[in-house]
Amino acid sequence: MTTISIFGKGNMGQAIGSNFSDAGNQVSYVTHDSKKTELGEIVIFAVPYPAVKEVIADYKQELAGKIIIDITNPLDFDTFDRLVVPSDSSAAALFATELPESKVVKGFNTTFAATLTSKKVSGEHQTTVLLASDDAAAKETISQSLSGSGLNVVDAGALKRARELEAIGFLQLTLAASEKINWTGGFDLFK
Amino acid sequence: MTTISIFGKGNMGQAIGSNFSDAGNQVSYVTHDSKKTELGEIVIFAVPYPAVKEVIADYKQELAGKIIIDITNPLDFDTFDRLVVPSDSSAAALFATELPESKVVKGFNTTFAATLTSKKVSGEHQTTVLLASDDAAAKETISQSLSGSGLNVVDAGALKRARELEAIGFLQLTLAASEKINWTGGFDLFK
Repeated sequence: MTTISIFGKGNMGQAIGSNFSDAGNQVSYVTHDSKKTELGEIVIFAVPYPAVKEVIADYKQELAGKIIIDITNPLDFDTFDRLVVPSDSSAAALFATELPESKVVKGFNTTFAATLTSKKVSGEHQTTVLLASDDAAAKETISQSLSGSGLNVVDAGALKRARELEAIGFLQLTLAASEKINWTGGFDLFK
Repeated sequence: MTTISIFGKGNMGQAIGSNFSDAGNQVSYVTHDSKKTELGEIVIFAVPYPAVKEVIADYKQELAGKIIIDITNPLDFDTFDRLVVPSDSSAAALFATELPESKVVKGFNTTFAATLTSKKVSGEHQTTVLLASDDAAAKETISQSLSGSGLNVVDAGALKRARELEAIGFLQLTLAASEKINWTGGFDLFK
């Protein structure tokens, strides 16, 4: 059993919260109305990319030592034509620089909320969560904590690979926004 | 019926050749031994990324006016840790700059050869070919030419999106090289 604190209670935050509670973990949410409390072993940034700045400013000390899952897709949502992070970096890598005492993991950004809730992509194939981080133990803790959630969890490599995960998240969002795919579909990984 | 010229007769070139001939097109290969001939309406760069330079140098005039499909994954194969193209660009975008009179399309770089031959990823789900180009008519011609091939063809957007397609190809190769997935598996798209 792991304790999970989720910043943000939108579609993604709620879906991920259910995934972790389905697997027997203790999940709590941190919202704007929340009093400042101690955070769980795993902390999830399930707020839009621009809002993470504020979370880091408010909770920098509390985030030290924690496993952080960054699920953001740092799109320019006005144009849907680019990411707002530098092309040779990623949102997760930028957060890791700002939080050197935390264990930053990129994950859940390549899965739409509906596929986390149903545990299937397009109702057909088990949903895969891809994790990228330089901290192998952090990825293992997340993977163990999701055992029994019904999700397939795959180690996608070092934190550098967050760039490729964000590229997948980006392309997938453009495909859904242009109605090439549904919000219940998207990319999935086959072994 | 479209005429297809494929540079390179490796696993990928042969698989893609079969896909186009299955769909009733006339396929020919251009290899180092080939005499210089007229090229088909669609030309496929199915040689490793570093070898495209030579193809362009040798065939620049013949490539004018043609639809070109760039299938390369421009990895640093020594490290498997980066792409060798600038992070804000793509192999396809670089080729388009060198071939302003050609219609450059990124495609087939996110599918392993085995999944093109079997038309299924992991034997389970129809293989999807993603196409990115600024030339909508070129993408349409390719899509029509593959009608009946057994492949699912999806328009992934403008040539800028080649960067994201190359990111997917890159990540997929690292996952196969590290034995997280098989060469019959990989990413597939669900509607």
